[in-house]
Amino acid sequence: MTRSPKGPDDRRVDPLLEVREKRRGKRPGDAYVRIVRPFEDAFQRGGDEGELIATERTVLGRPGWTRFLRKLRTFLIGRPIHSEREEHERLTKVKGLAIFSSDNISSSAYGPEEIMRVLALAGTGALTLTLPLAGLISVMLAIVTLSYRQTIKAYPKGASSYIVASDNLGSGAGVLAAAALLIGYVVTVAVSVSAGVAALTSIVPELYEPRVLVGSAMVAFLMVGNLRGIRESGTIFMIPTYAYIVVMLGIIGYGIVRTLAGDVAQFEAPAAWEGVEQGGQALGLFLILRAFSQGAVALTGVEAISDGVPAFKPPEWKNARTTLTWAAIVFAILFLGIAYLLTTIGIQHDPFQQQTVLSLLVRHLTGDGAVLVIAQVSTALILILAANTSFADFPRLSSFLARDGFLPRQFAFRGERLAFTTGIVALSLMAIGLLFGFKASVSGLIPLYTLGVFLAFTLSQAGMLTRWWRRREPGWRAGLAINGLGTLTTAVVALVVGGSNFFAGSWLVIVLVPLLMLLLMAINRHYRDMDNALALDRIPDTGEVAPQPIVIVPISRLDRPARQAIAFANSISREAVAVHVTNDPAEADAMRERWPAWAGSTELVVVESPYRALIGPLLAYMDALQRQAPDRPILVVLAEFVPRHWWENLLHNQTALRLKLRLFARRNTIVADVPYHAPRS
Amino acid sequence: MTRSPKGPDDRRVDPLLEVREKRRGKRPGDAYVRIVRPFEDAFQRGGDEGELIATERTVLGRPGWTRFLRKLRTFLIGRPIHSEREEHERLTKVKGLAIFSSDNISSSAYGPEEIMRVLALAGTGALTLTLPLAGLISVMLAIVTLSYRQTIKAYPKGASSYIVASDNLGSGAGVLAAAALLIGYVVTVAVSVSAGVAALTSIVPELYEPRVLVGSAMVAFLMVGNLRGIRESGTIFMIPTYAYIVVMLGIIGYGIVRTLAGDVAQFEAPAAWEGVEQGGQALGLFLILRAFSQGAVALTGVEAISDGVPAFKPPEWKNARTTLTWAAIVFAILFLGIAYLLTTIGIQHDPFQQQTVLSLLVRHLTGDGAVLVIAQVSTALILILAANTSFADFPRLSSFLARDGFLPRQFAFRGERLAFTTGIVALSLMAIGLLFGFKASVSGLIPLYTLGVFLAFTLSQAGMLTRWWRRREPGWRAGLAINGLGTLTTAVVALVVGGSNFFAGSWLVIVLVPLLMLLLMAINRHYRDMDNALALDRIPDTGEVAPQPIVIVPISRLDRPARQAIAFANSISREAVAVHVTNDPAEADAMRERWPAWAGSTELVVVESPYRALIGPLLAYMDALQRQAPDRPILVVLAEFVPRHWWENLLHNQTALRLKLRLFARRNTIVADVPYHAPRS
Repeated sequence: MTRSPKGPDDRRVDPLLEVREKRRGKRPGDAYVRIVRPFEDAFQRGGDEGELIATERTVLGRPGWTRFLRKLRTFLIGRPIHSEREEHERLTKVKGLAIFSSDNISSSAYGPEEIMRVLALAGTGALTLTLPLAGLISVMLAIVTLSYRQTIKAYPKGASSYIVASDNLGSGAGVLAAAALLIGYVVTVAVSVSAGVAALTSIVPELYEPRVLVGSAMVAFLMVGNLRGIRESGTIFMIPTYAYIVVMLGIIGYGIVRTLAGDVAQFEAPAAWEGVEQGGQALGLFLILRAFSQGAVALTGVEAISDGVPAFKPPEWKNARTTLTWAAIVFAILFLGIAYLLTTIGIQHDPFQQQTVLSLLVRHLTGDGAVLVIAQVSTALILILAANTSFADFPRLSSFLARDGFLPRQFAFRGERLAFTTGIVALSLMAIGLLFGFKASVSGLIPLYTLGVFLAFTLSQAGMLTRWWRRREPGWRAGLAINGLGTLTTAVVALVVGGSNFFAGSWLVIVLVPLLMLLLMAINRHYRDMDNALALDRIPDTGEVAPQPIVIVPISRLDRPARQAIAFANSISREAVAVHVTNDPAEADAMRERWPAWAGSTELVVVESPYRALIGPLLAYMDALQRQAPDRPILVVLAEFVPRHWWENLLHNQTALRLKLRLFARRNTIVADVPYHAPRS
Repeated sequence: MTRSPKGPDDRRVDPLLEVREKRRGKRPGDAYVRIVRPFEDAFQRGGDEGELIATERTVLGRPGWTRFLRKLRTFLIGRPIHSEREEHERLTKVKGLAIFSSDNISSSAYGPEEIMRVLALAGTGALTLTLPLAGLISVMLAIVTLSYRQTIKAYPKGASSYIVASDNLGSGAGVLAAAALLIGYVVTVAVSVSAGVAALTSIVPELYEPRVLVGSAMVAFLMVGNLRGIRESGTIFMIPTYAYIVVMLGIIGYGIVRTLAGDVAQFEAPAAWEGVEQGGQALGLFLILRAFSQGAVALTGVEAISDGVPAFKPPEWKNARTTLTWAAIVFAILFLGIAYLLTTIGIQHDPFQQQTVLSLLVRHLTGDGAVLVIAQVSTALILILAANTSFADFPRLSSFLARDGFLPRQFAFRGERLAFTTGIVALSLMAIGLLFGFKASVSGLIPLYTLGVFLAFTLSQAGMLTRWWRRREPGWRAGLAINGLGTLTTAVVALVVGGSNFFAGSWLVIVLVPLLMLLLMAINRHYRDMDNALALDRIPDTGEVAPQPIVIVPISRLDRPARQAIAFANSISREAVAVHVTNDPAEADAMRERWPAWAGSTELVVVESPYRALIGPLLAYMDALQRQAPDRPILVVLAEFVPRHWWENLLHNQTALRLKLRLFARRNTIVADVPYHAPRS
């Protein structure tokens, strides 16, 4: 410790860091020169008094052990971005369709297959129901689209189910919708990535075995990309969606022409598939409902456009709802077209899940050539883009929730790249967890998916119903009718999905959504309680001076760290006392003997601990001091040794750590850590 | 925070906690009465000035969240024991034999089986070699015993290989022996417990499946017992050893009489064993050496008595070596007797490891009756007792090592029950790890066991050689010859064991022992470096006053915790400054506006952070302050919120935690935590 015999305490430090220069004396020899330029390039002066503005250097240029982490971070996600540089570019309808409807449109890649997988349980003959069910789902989509067109108009600043339900049905319904949506977003990532991997494994079978790892790598890629703060408006994001639409429309057109011409052979299942799955179930209502449920996943993409309304060019709501309509039409054409071809040609699904039915269809029509590769790659790309929509929606929704005190505040904090770091990382980890838990199986994940989303839909639609009824604005009757039909449809679908898939997985959602809702409410209650308890808004400063603390310095031996701690204690209190707890009376005698020469006038109290405990006697001693002066806090000054290497911490400070944990729980107690840094040798 | 308008700072607190009573004024109305009895029953006054002695109440009676843990601890291991109550009862030879030689004698329960298991690889015919090998091992034991009789005489205060090797061959050899012994003790526990479990599963086959858990439960039982501070001298510990000796001698005698009389049928292996193991290996030298190695495990118990010399009644060394001789004789009789009967009757080992050969022998001689149960139970008990010797030796050796700075200091600390808590817990965890890793298989564990122990033997014997040579005391030539033979024997056995079992597991020891040795040396070097760097022995107090710290209080909002922290900062410094880092200029303006009414005259510095980072700008600000006054430390006062429930910590203090981690690494920085306890609602 550096000590100045003159006592520098009279030189006050200027907290506003003025640049100053002082000279005393004339000749260089006896001159006392202090040139302080503390600003350097770390701060600029703000306009108001007492205001400093940090520069990028305060974030990037820190020395020390975090430098490596910083470099890694900069490599992965780039340099920090200034708050003012937030993007405000708006989307045209063409771009909006590409970006927000990828979730919706990409469902056509796996929707028909999921219907067929259930129907096949009643034998291949039942597969003829695929097309009618696809038609029914398209009708549902039309109803939901019509309903959401109204929602978008009513909430041009973002029509998330959380907002619509909170606004009209109260905070409880909003939180319920939010819980359902949060789970839905996580499953969206897992489902889309799994389907994307399946599209790839259809042409590269070697990827089937490590499919969970391939999917996790995709999620990690999306995570890093989103932590960088991907600009959603980038033109590059248009490519997968339009490529998929064009390729699929082409294949469907080609397929329809050829089937109408009658020159497409019927599909024949390979001999190896024979008897792998039992087709012996009866084709009852339950099976049809389950098939419908699996297919209803196709509707889940509607929420994405509603969330993103403010991102469109003005008039936002008009552009958004036109885009929504277009997305629904494109989806319906692809979905029905694929379903038509599948049933006409009689394609069956691969019981080994090595190939998707879409790849079987394309291969059947065009063979093992370039078209197949293009179709599968564009399918995989749009599916990854669909997963990416959740990477925009989940962090945004969780930031709303954090802002309203339903999630820890970290979720509302924008990271260095203006992205909601905590939300992005949480989403990625949970999605990877699902991939591992469900072995990247689309069929296994879908029962988790649809129910949550339809629950949110229903709450949002019911919110709109209430809104029409309360406001009775012009045209409210028509609006009421449309949203009423929407509410009914989505509620029925939710019930069908929940019921028919109960044992297949939707029970998990039925358990998780209320639990998550309770968690969100508990967090909210906690924050509200604490805000009430801690708020000081109305209490003015009384000018009273707080009582000075009683200062004690527990020391274990006479060494440099101990002396540094005692010096600090003496610098802030005239009555600091060193306390030595020991189980060895002889050692205590030795210490007492050397004490005066070592520590000067500072008082030493030796507490003998014949039960060898350290913390108990120290706390009891503090209690006794406290009883003498109940109104003064006790400041415990701890000497801590900072070793050169992190692993050396295992050899030091174990007791200090335990002591701090106990002191943290003690009222009226302040702990000061005085670190002694190991000398560099 | 309680504030007294009169400022109580002038009432000095008495650090020695005198009971005092002050009265001012005469009438009760205006009397200022302060009766302080801070002692209550927590402390007694010590003889010297400034000395307090803690009572048991300081350990037991603490209020707070640790009370439950304390109750659990008291239930499991009992109330704390006063240092003065350490047991000093000495052992007679009869008790010493029971307690220290259980490790040695119990080896006879599994030693013959391990020899047979290897020999059987060359077909059942090779089993006839069991008896000759047992004879060879008995000769080895005689040599080692003779050798160790000298070591015990030379080191009456404890003849641990660590001490003998350190003393004569230098600290490096000592640490090498210690590393080998530490590993040996861990394996002793695992082997003995595994063999104990095998003795039980022979009569209760249902325990075979969960044998790892049964073994782990035994280790946990030993751990709790030793944490309670088992008195090694308890008569109860005599029972298993003598019961085993008596039962086995009886069975051997009975068996020999009956086989000599010719009325014992040859053993016939059950049909199910047929062809389970290949017996096709040639009976070469390598196989015989391996069989010998497996059997050499029987010698490993010698170290236990040597370690325990000081526990015997005086003359300690005489009693100890007599006991050692008796232990060797008893062991040899049992070992040879069992081997004789096994080969004569032609018992084979169970390839399914469901029954030990000892239980097969007893069953063959006496049937499925009470004798079998008694034999197996007494075998299991002596094996558990054998494991218990390691629970005495490992913590003791590790406390020696910790005292000499080769292990973290916690290993030298005696817990509330005077046991070396850290060593006991570490041993238990590692032994349970081995049980899981080797599925409680004696055969799998033994290759790890023998090598380490023989390495330590060799070093100890070599140390004795050096000692004779250097001192040339009377009789040194005979001593040299005996210990020379001992060194040679143990070295050869170590080489044979290491070589023949290399791929069976001893490679692990060959890797681990040097690694552990390097670790011990590294820890020692670290402690020595630090002691040199931190020692203050020669530096007297200069009476200088350390410079006062620069005090800053980072605050995130205007709430009660923040104000409490500012009040503390003001109570120890006249120039404390509050620092608010924010990324929201509007919020900063609002805070600045309310500041004067809220905080009075304390200065507020607002640091705007347009990159939204908190820690970087704060550290940069501290750097700038530091540049103005390089010789003053910076005290960072942190307001911390102490929630009512531990899980609520997840919603608070995350940033404070990260900040503290960074501040810990900054030089010249002191961190004070001012906890604000959540009000009980």
